[in-house]
Amino acid sequence: MAATSSSEDSLRRALADKQSTIDAHGNVIRQLKSSGASKSEIDDAVKALNALKLEKTSIENQLKASISGDANGSVVSRDAFRQAVVNTLERRLFYIPAFKIYRGVAGLYDYGPPGCAVKSNVLAFWRQHFVLEEDMLEVDCPCVTPEVVLKASGHVDKFTDLMVKDEKTGNCYRADHLLKDYCKDKLENDLTMSADKAAELKHVLAVLDDLSGEQLGAKIKEYGIVAPDTKNPLSDPYPFNLMFQTQIGPSGASTGYMRPETAQGIFVNFKDLYYYNGNKLPFAAAQIGQAFRNEISPRQGLLRVREFTLAEIEHFVDPDDKSHPKYSEVSNLEFLMFPRNEQMSGQSAKRLCLGEAVSKGIVNNQTLAYFIGRVYLFLARLGIDEERLRFRQHLPNEMAHYAADCWDAEIESSYGWIECVGIADRSAYDLRAHTDKSGVALVAQEKFAEPKEVEKLIITPVKKELGLAFKGNQKMVVEALEAMNEKEAMDMKAALDTKGEVEFEVCTLEKTVTIKNNMVSISKEKKKEHQRVFTPSVIEPSFGIGRIIYCLYEHSFYMRPSKAGDEQLNVFRFPPLVAPIKCTVFPLVQNQQYEEVAKQISRSLTAAGISNKKDITGTSIGKRYARTDELGVPFAVTVDSASSVTIRERDSKDQIRVNVDEVAAVIKEVSEGRCTWDDILQKYPAHTSASADE
Amino acid sequence: MAATSSSEDSLRRALADKQSTIDAHGNVIRQLKSSGASKSEIDDAVKALNALKLEKTSIENQLKASISGDANGSVVSRDAFRQAVVNTLERRLFYIPAFKIYRGVAGLYDYGPPGCAVKSNVLAFWRQHFVLEEDMLEVDCPCVTPEVVLKASGHVDKFTDLMVKDEKTGNCYRADHLLKDYCKDKLENDLTMSADKAAELKHVLAVLDDLSGEQLGAKIKEYGIVAPDTKNPLSDPYPFNLMFQTQIGPSGASTGYMRPETAQGIFVNFKDLYYYNGNKLPFAAAQIGQAFRNEISPRQGLLRVREFTLAEIEHFVDPDDKSHPKYSEVSNLEFLMFPRNEQMSGQSAKRLCLGEAVSKGIVNNQTLAYFIGRVYLFLARLGIDEERLRFRQHLPNEMAHYAADCWDAEIESSYGWIECVGIADRSAYDLRAHTDKSGVALVAQEKFAEPKEVEKLIITPVKKELGLAFKGNQKMVVEALEAMNEKEAMDMKAALDTKGEVEFEVCTLEKTVTIKNNMVSISKEKKKEHQRVFTPSVIEPSFGIGRIIYCLYEHSFYMRPSKAGDEQLNVFRFPPLVAPIKCTVFPLVQNQQYEEVAKQISRSLTAAGISNKKDITGTSIGKRYARTDELGVPFAVTVDSASSVTIRERDSKDQIRVNVDEVAAVIKEVSEGRCTWDDILQKYPAHTSASADE
Repeated sequence: MAATSSSEDSLRRALADKQSTIDAHGNVIRQLKSSGASKSEIDDAVKALNALKLEKTSIENQLKASISGDANGSVVSRDAFRQAVVNTLERRLFYIPAFKIYRGVAGLYDYGPPGCAVKSNVLAFWRQHFVLEEDMLEVDCPCVTPEVVLKASGHVDKFTDLMVKDEKTGNCYRADHLLKDYCKDKLENDLTMSADKAAELKHVLAVLDDLSGEQLGAKIKEYGIVAPDTKNPLSDPYPFNLMFQTQIGPSGASTGYMRPETAQGIFVNFKDLYYYNGNKLPFAAAQIGQAFRNEISPRQGLLRVREFTLAEIEHFVDPDDKSHPKYSEVSNLEFLMFPRNEQMSGQSAKRLCLGEAVSKGIVNNQTLAYFIGRVYLFLARLGIDEERLRFRQHLPNEMAHYAADCWDAEIESSYGWIECVGIADRSAYDLRAHTDKSGVALVAQEKFAEPKEVEKLIITPVKKELGLAFKGNQKMVVEALEAMNEKEAMDMKAALDTKGEVEFEVCTLEKTVTIKNNMVSISKEKKKEHQRVFTPSVIEPSFGIGRIIYCLYEHSFYMRPSKAGDEQLNVFRFPPLVAPIKCTVFPLVQNQQYEEVAKQISRSLTAAGISNKKDITGTSIGKRYARTDELGVPFAVTVDSASSVTIRERDSKDQIRVNVDEVAAVIKEVSEGRCTWDDILQKYPAHTSASADE
Repeated sequence: MAATSSSEDSLRRALADKQSTIDAHGNVIRQLKSSGASKSEIDDAVKALNALKLEKTSIENQLKASISGDANGSVVSRDAFRQAVVNTLERRLFYIPAFKIYRGVAGLYDYGPPGCAVKSNVLAFWRQHFVLEEDMLEVDCPCVTPEVVLKASGHVDKFTDLMVKDEKTGNCYRADHLLKDYCKDKLENDLTMSADKAAELKHVLAVLDDLSGEQLGAKIKEYGIVAPDTKNPLSDPYPFNLMFQTQIGPSGASTGYMRPETAQGIFVNFKDLYYYNGNKLPFAAAQIGQAFRNEISPRQGLLRVREFTLAEIEHFVDPDDKSHPKYSEVSNLEFLMFPRNEQMSGQSAKRLCLGEAVSKGIVNNQTLAYFIGRVYLFLARLGIDEERLRFRQHLPNEMAHYAADCWDAEIESSYGWIECVGIADRSAYDLRAHTDKSGVALVAQEKFAEPKEVEKLIITPVKKELGLAFKGNQKMVVEALEAMNEKEAMDMKAALDTKGEVEFEVCTLEKTVTIKNNMVSISKEKKKEHQRVFTPSVIEPSFGIGRIIYCLYEHSFYMRPSKAGDEQLNVFRFPPLVAPIKCTVFPLVQNQQYEEVAKQISRSLTAAGISNKKDITGTSIGKRYARTDELGVPFAVTVDSASSVTIRERDSKDQIRVNVDEVAAVIKEVSEGRCTWDDILQKYPAHTSASADE
């Protein structure tokens, strides 16, 4: 990327130079003409000018190629690929823009039958892989949430995006989107822009997420950005809360919101869940459910929507012991990681061994690493391409101040790298926030086997002296002294012991006062304690199910020529685990006997819990295979006799011959992952018949 | 009920008679006293009065017994039973009042770990029993719904309850609830009320659901009902819309609601789903999801909540052919049905054969009956007590005007008979409503094998004559003539043919005009048609999952004495299909070897997809069995050696001995219903050891 960028740079400079040469040469010609030079003299000069213009065009073309390579990879082929995937998904009803007959609502989608089945399969596997495997406590809380809960969590005050309004029509836009679009458009299409200006716009793009409302507003003004639909001027940016607001009950006095995440339902139940777990740490609670974000202007299809399914885990752990008993099961895993340092020094993601990342201090702790490893296994099992999956560490400015460490599982799609799972060590933030607001202590206890001696900090302000010194301000100073934490207090003690006095800032007075030796006594005393009471840390893996599924669609999609070679056929190479339908059944030709056998096989598959679909239309077997491939159905049973049938595997197109009464068992085994298609190939005779072939 | 009621009636009359006798006798005594009668004379009279009072008390007691038997069964034991169930459910976190640390929100509940698992199991079985078995098209649509959709469905205008407000505090109440509470309270506690008054209040209770706002308001005034919390006067009743309202997007111009049912998401997608099904009828679509009702004042715990999970099926069928191919699979089923006639003639529900109910015309059609049968099988398999399950037909006044027939699966609980599944033939109403509003034709086509000759009505107004007769009103008359349906037109033709003229009402003119022979020609012509285009009927089974689960809790709950006989232990007799955890595993005593074996068994169960829980606390085995029974865990594995273990069944408390490496397979077989506990008992040796016993 650095190399490309500098070549773009020099091309922009070369283009500007060439333009000045052309301008100068134009002046020369004009002078020749006005001074009455000879025709041949003028013709030569024009020829030279045309040669310069050709050279300029050549530089422009190089610059265009350099920009599109730089900004978007091969943007054309990416867009074409996405269009092919999305067309197939919409045509086969994997998803549908919601309320389409009423012209739809931006950011709301329906899952049609195959999409709904894929989602069910992903969620069932999530439950198996996380909830059952780790003995998690799954809960199911309402979406409607009273204001007090989301006030405590910070969402009422901070869950906002910056918005600008068209000053005439009132149309709303996301301020950062407008600035981003402006910069990208300029960089891609304004070839005459100076290299310095280009560098400036690139910098804006890089820091876009960190800009304040004022900074965004200033840039929008500076660049003269107007409303894209009307060219009207825009308002200053202001925050818009992304929660859907409503009223609970008829009185109008009780504001509620549709939850923006499922996590809060777990936090507020911590006390009960801890009790349910026998008052023992660590334990994890989990929740799958709808979440809602009233996006200002949704884009990117299924990736940024107003309602979506989240699957969240809150793993509660002792902050003094973040080891994990099953850590060794994942510590040897290797996959693409993108630590903070590599990002900041302009390197790219690299394969790392998870255990090494922990021992080198790249990943903060074992429990966080355990979940990173489990998430990797989960996504790989679903069929996400490992080469296009990376775990990116949050930069310091991306993380909330309370977070200890945070990694995103990012999946590369035609839209770029997409955050699909966030895995954060949120420390004690959430439980503390709800403890403060509700007055219910969300804490854990560790009972000591025998009482422990602990050192306790004792701060004793000498009120008489303080009163003399500070009069009416005495109370504020006393409170400020008592509120010191251990480090502050011990620093003060050291200063008082050596210098006899110290400057001390009293926030409530908004000034600094002088504390003398005789005004406060600070000491540490030993005390016996029978238990330790503490707020657990929480490690939160949070899965955007819709995003994972969309990326899976892109990673599973490919095209191959039809047998006749006259068209490209679409295939989704879903693993059986994910496939919406595990098996199709069709009679080779329309004939009552074959149809009866097909029905019987379909019934036995249904009884075995294997989703299947009959296709008894008279279309050619090749067309029926193509239809089934386009839904990602891994196996197709073709009935071409009453006693045995063929089973075809989607990607290899291998076919085997199996007795009718064994079909359900074979499909069940291979669909549920108890054996592979290769195992099956060993066991049953291959089938090679022209008639059943595509 | 009729018998009890008349005995209550005669008791009220007897009580009133006795009171008058007592009053009269009191007067006699006063007269005796004032007229200076002898002491013995007065004493005798007082004795007689006391005897009368005793008789009155006896009648009062009989009346009380009659009322409580009549209104609530044995209301005391019902309440005590419910309290025992609910205590257990809350203590073991089957459910939790949501946002409890913030004092909760009425009508919102969380499912804790076991409740969440029960719900998952019920939904997984629903998918297997309905979606997979019938090849339904499952979809998954957003909860946030734009106004236009719910305007078309009628919810914006009609999804309301009548509310009254405390005129001073603004507190809101459901008008029908207040009236109901008043009547019930009077009937139960006012023993001096006349039989006529009692009959009136009972009538009010019977027709409560049919009362208009004006009628409710009049009754509230008449009875002097005031706000229960403050005794303040109440406003007149007015409709309150039960949908949670919100705004979609930032503009404030796009009203949305949280969907009150999932069905609309299916209806608006009819066209795509019909295409997906190869343009063939019948087919069914299904959806599981959250629905929302902003209840005015939620009551009855989990039965009336503000957010709940619905599972809905919309089966689309040709209105001219409502037969069902799998009807014969359910037609021999027998269960409690409560047809319209039995309800109106005061009889009770009775066992009927489903096939007979159809052939006698009690159930409208085969498809409706097929779903009634499948719902019966579904509920019975979940563990609903068949004796407390009935299918009640809607009375004509309960049904929407467009509905062809409607049956509710009602389950008896401590709250009475609760509607848990509605199975309605909604005819073409919903598809027509969305066709009208969206302009997109939601219709099906039947292609004829060969063109069919059909008669078409032709109405040709003679504009010249009409113009002469009606001048400026000509256009309205022409439109009214053209809008006649077949019957109206043929009646007019007959009248014109015989009488030469006819009176005709033109709505748009708000008057009747005279149409003469020469003003219109009406005829029927034969035409060839290649297909029939029609709006399908929809048959809708709609499941309130939370209600089913709550009733299941009540039906599964029982108590039995502990072994020592000193306490009552709670048990849920969930079938394995539903049980939140299929198996607990515990070492008989705390010992590392046994704990290792327990871990190994737990791991093998997890690998087999069987939810399980280890209990390695040191509590007595009896206590651990009790804990596990209270969660409804059907099987408990106790490790008392390194090679073989015991498996105990919850309800029989039978124990068998099984080798460690067979445990997972045995539990899997019996949990997944591939064999019964009795089969297992035949195969493995019984275990009878004092130590492992309770």
